[in-house]
Amino acid sequence: MADPRKPVRRQESGVDGRVRVVIESVSPAVDDGRFATKRVVGDRVVVEADCFTDGHDAVAARVLWRRDDESVWREAPMAFLGNDRWRGSFVAESLGRYRYTVTAWVDHFLSWLHDLERRVDPEDIKIAALVGAELIDGAAKRAAGADRKALADWAARLRAGGNAEALKALGLDEALGEVAKRHPDRSLALTYPAELPLVVDRDRARYSTWYELFPRSTSTVAGQHGTFRDVEARLPYVAELGFDVLYFPPIHPIGREKRKGKNNSLAPTSEDVGSPWAIGSAEGGHKSLHPQLGTLEDFRRVVARARDFGIEVALDIAYQCAPDHPYVTEHPEWFRKRPDGTVQYAENPPKKYQDIYPFNFESEAWQALWEELASIFEFWIAEGVRIFRVDNPHTKPFPFWEWAIDRLKRAYPETIFLAEAFTRPKVMHRLAKLGYTQSYTYFAWRNTKSELTEYFTELAKGPGREYFRPNVWPNTPDILTEYLQFGGRPAFIARVALAATLAASYGIYGPAFELLEAAPRDPGGEEYLDSEKYQLREWDLDRADSLRGFIARINKARRENPALQSDWSLRFFPVDNEHLICYAKATEDRENVVVSVVNLDPYHTQSGWVELDLAALGVDPASPYQMHELLTGARYLWHGPRNFVSLDITRAPAQIFRLRRKVRTERDFDYFL
Amino acid sequence: MADPRKPVRRQESGVDGRVRVVIESVSPAVDDGRFATKRVVGDRVVVEADCFTDGHDAVAARVLWRRDDESVWREAPMAFLGNDRWRGSFVAESLGRYRYTVTAWVDHFLSWLHDLERRVDPEDIKIAALVGAELIDGAAKRAAGADRKALADWAARLRAGGNAEALKALGLDEALGEVAKRHPDRSLALTYPAELPLVVDRDRARYSTWYELFPRSTSTVAGQHGTFRDVEARLPYVAELGFDVLYFPPIHPIGREKRKGKNNSLAPTSEDVGSPWAIGSAEGGHKSLHPQLGTLEDFRRVVARARDFGIEVALDIAYQCAPDHPYVTEHPEWFRKRPDGTVQYAENPPKKYQDIYPFNFESEAWQALWEELASIFEFWIAEGVRIFRVDNPHTKPFPFWEWAIDRLKRAYPETIFLAEAFTRPKVMHRLAKLGYTQSYTYFAWRNTKSELTEYFTELAKGPGREYFRPNVWPNTPDILTEYLQFGGRPAFIARVALAATLAASYGIYGPAFELLEAAPRDPGGEEYLDSEKYQLREWDLDRADSLRGFIARINKARRENPALQSDWSLRFFPVDNEHLICYAKATEDRENVVVSVVNLDPYHTQSGWVELDLAALGVDPASPYQMHELLTGARYLWHGPRNFVSLDITRAPAQIFRLRRKVRTERDFDYFL
Repeated sequence: MADPRKPVRRQESGVDGRVRVVIESVSPAVDDGRFATKRVVGDRVVVEADCFTDGHDAVAARVLWRRDDESVWREAPMAFLGNDRWRGSFVAESLGRYRYTVTAWVDHFLSWLHDLERRVDPEDIKIAALVGAELIDGAAKRAAGADRKALADWAARLRAGGNAEALKALGLDEALGEVAKRHPDRSLALTYPAELPLVVDRDRARYSTWYELFPRSTSTVAGQHGTFRDVEARLPYVAELGFDVLYFPPIHPIGREKRKGKNNSLAPTSEDVGSPWAIGSAEGGHKSLHPQLGTLEDFRRVVARARDFGIEVALDIAYQCAPDHPYVTEHPEWFRKRPDGTVQYAENPPKKYQDIYPFNFESEAWQALWEELASIFEFWIAEGVRIFRVDNPHTKPFPFWEWAIDRLKRAYPETIFLAEAFTRPKVMHRLAKLGYTQSYTYFAWRNTKSELTEYFTELAKGPGREYFRPNVWPNTPDILTEYLQFGGRPAFIARVALAATLAASYGIYGPAFELLEAAPRDPGGEEYLDSEKYQLREWDLDRADSLRGFIARINKARRENPALQSDWSLRFFPVDNEHLICYAKATEDRENVVVSVVNLDPYHTQSGWVELDLAALGVDPASPYQMHELLTGARYLWHGPRNFVSLDITRAPAQIFRLRRKVRTERDFDYFL
Repeated sequence: MADPRKPVRRQESGVDGRVRVVIESVSPAVDDGRFATKRVVGDRVVVEADCFTDGHDAVAARVLWRRDDESVWREAPMAFLGNDRWRGSFVAESLGRYRYTVTAWVDHFLSWLHDLERRVDPEDIKIAALVGAELIDGAAKRAAGADRKALADWAARLRAGGNAEALKALGLDEALGEVAKRHPDRSLALTYPAELPLVVDRDRARYSTWYELFPRSTSTVAGQHGTFRDVEARLPYVAELGFDVLYFPPIHPIGREKRKGKNNSLAPTSEDVGSPWAIGSAEGGHKSLHPQLGTLEDFRRVVARARDFGIEVALDIAYQCAPDHPYVTEHPEWFRKRPDGTVQYAENPPKKYQDIYPFNFESEAWQALWEELASIFEFWIAEGVRIFRVDNPHTKPFPFWEWAIDRLKRAYPETIFLAEAFTRPKVMHRLAKLGYTQSYTYFAWRNTKSELTEYFTELAKGPGREYFRPNVWPNTPDILTEYLQFGGRPAFIARVALAATLAASYGIYGPAFELLEAAPRDPGGEEYLDSEKYQLREWDLDRADSLRGFIARINKARRENPALQSDWSLRFFPVDNEHLICYAKATEDRENVVVSVVNLDPYHTQSGWVELDLAALGVDPASPYQMHELLTGARYLWHGPRNFVSLDITRAPAQIFRLRRKVRTERDFDYFL
């Protein structure tokens, strides 16, 4: 078993005391290179570093990068930014693991050039020409072909001497200077000792739109257990709503021992279907399918059909066992025993979860356990699944995840892992650092303008953005927030609009969401009444009040506006009403700018003046610009930074504007085209 | 030659997958442990780290430390601060290099205790008692003597069973719990892979008061070259002013070739004494004394006599040679040759410094050069010098300094190195990181309230404070600021008061400073007219307008108020007048609080309302407090945070208040005592 916790090399290269350059503060770097920075294919990776030396000598720097499976570094020049900071970049061209670092050196040719420009004394210039000839001869020796000849000729002409003014002009010949710069003397170069890791994912790691449903609740026949065939029939609906990931809670055999009844009852009837997270029974475990859902063949079909709709099936991996899971008898060494000889169930005193046996990761047989757990992913990968939502990863050891995700992503770099951890911030960040592709967030509990502004500014601008990719959910089968319980339809609209426009990846648990399911099991709790976690449900997808049309429009806006497909450009703007929140996202070239305004008060129409930062959005403050509302199709002409908005909760509690700039005359508005 | 650039170990200890604890973000850490944190003897080193594990298990953490020359770690418990953060500390008891790190583990005994507290089901409690007995037996095996017996007994009683309530109470026995906590199971502990370095200096590294003078200008006979005997006679004066470091510019033979004349003239006369920084002549180099100053015996006497006054002599180390320095002929390989065969002098085109030959640190013979340069320090260390001001260290390679300072401080840990680098911030910080004990700063050019507030907040609160110890100078032989040139006596008072109260280490170049020397050589320049760098000067120390009395009072205030002897407590307070600046320093226990108010306008009396943060200063907002002005002896009774000050430039442009709190009644004011 490979150890993923390899040391990052810290030693500075060489002990030659003549290596005078310093390299510090290379960015991006996650925990100084202990963990990988994350990007997606096609991203330009911008690397910066402080590079400097003693005295006045000139420095040159390059960024180095290579795929982990290549041995040769590629290089790109770094440009000086001021204050000893340098910047270079490269494009992450393909999926997988990369390394990058920085090399720098004292460049005597550049120092010579810089000095020559400022020399005035003719005698000095003559001496300098000889010094330069020596440096250029050195460059010639490192060059070949035409470059070599050009440099050797140049050196000879400098050495030939003559009029100081002419010599100076010859030394400053720009074209020849460029040739020499191609062949620097790097014999005393320093390469930054840490080779910083980079994981390059596919685009869906950054931009994805998730729909969670319980396959067993997809039957159109009342009371009947849904099947993969029923899910197949549901695919056009999911596609119409504009989702590209269809995520199933566990689809394995469900334990019969200690099975829970409806609404988490401890007194189930024989009719009760149990919780899909109570995995395993005589019919099999994590590599088996619940017989009532269908066969492996049926599963393969639904995966393939989904793909035809541009939808990927995502599975839930929950490392826990029902008491009748085959592992319990086949591998008793993977479970903790109580002194009475029974297997230790999950508990958080005084609460007991007797239907769930956790694995004992401190087992002497931990290596075999790790192998088996990783093989569960491999089993479903072999069945065509490449996206996994992992249940409560924060209750399994961090070293296991680092090892497992590394192993799986080396073999299947296209795989996406979503960490379902709702826990303390450092734990969530650790999971993201050690390999999770996406992470659940605190979004569900961020409801006010200040909460949303602070949290999404941290996600979009904080240092964690190098590795923590948020995936935000207004609801999940475990989370029916107070805001949704009491806010009614405008609350559902506001929350899905916020999710879809604040985050490049978001998801809903449906059809509960679009059908505005809002009744809690217990007052003050966040569990759904009659939760699908414990029973079959029937859903009337065609109900008139369904949000399906609204969600379809919002997901269409996401697909058509690349600004909404990444997170880092997010910027909030002031509105003089605490119930209204306004923010924008833009592509790097600012060709695509989307401004969203959401009414956070689900009970009243709210209006106010928003104040855009026009310079940041690339808008000429002297010209009007068009705000094209993408959900209603309405168009507004705005002038200057301050404009009035009014969000009627009965009509449009959320507005998503594509900003269209005026180019020259009214005929040139880009929306005339 | 030892390589100081040793790798910091990055591998996490062990590859046992059962090690479930995580340690992150250990602080303090300079560049993740690449460089040492700095403290002085007696400091409590406070170490923090994020320590956590998966799931609900309890974690325990300890800080580990040892001297570099010891092999056994010492340990202290860390306390939980919330948000997965832990804090522990140790006292840096002695001079030299230390290492510290953090160890943490999942503590099953603590988890068991935590769960037991919340258990209610009698059957659960009985089972828990058996589980606990097993854990406590384990602790007994790790213990010895009385602890072992107590634990074994405890386990046996838990195992004996009985009434659930009594068993629970037995399990929660606090005294026995403390015994068990002394013997935790650390078999799956993780020790943070980086052993973070710490350099412990003596107190003067943090708190020092410097006086620079040219020994050759100390003669009381007009026109006569001063000697070490004259310096000896000057010692009572320096002591009266309250300085504890007496720093000499270079005291070596001065080159005759290309010697500069008065005011840096290129046409010297035979009378000209030359610049002390043009080191070396037929009479010797860096290990010799200028014959006109005296003998080594005289030098030793001045060092010893100074010590009697509580003053340490500091020398200037300037690695550069006059053309007639013996090195030039003895070691031509240490210098760069020009194509015409001459030695390359210092230049910054079009400027030339033909009287100075820099060393070529890219020489093939760099190792011998490093050895020789380090031996210069060793020579003067052998003569009793332990403080060095290093001239332009930023023009010599960083790896040399790291190597040399490490070597010298391992042998002589009491040595203090002050870096005279006025250059770009990252270069100055690098020098501090790699070993300089103190650093010159930008203080001379920070004159306005916002400049001073921003800069000193960075120095006192920024991450650089772990390694960058500021030493601030209102003037130097190279720096006569515009503020001093035009501000007259109030400007000198303001600047020395700022230096002495903003920074625990400061210095002046005298007697130019106390005698208000303000004439520049060139308009717009910062060089002194008739600078001592190029000629002898006579100074009338008894002039009526001398600041000697004022400086003596301010240095006395520093000696008597420990708040002024360290930097980190600095805190600025608002004043409603941009010309007035107000700030305080306090000891950790807030027993000693000093509030300073300085009028930054040297031309007009300024007054305004200062607004202290009484909570931060430990003052009861309901009680009056006394402000005892230490320079004049005046006392003021202040009430509440807002109080009026008026700073008359003719009388008191700077005021330094010792804050004295009311305790109970007027008889209990601590200033009654």
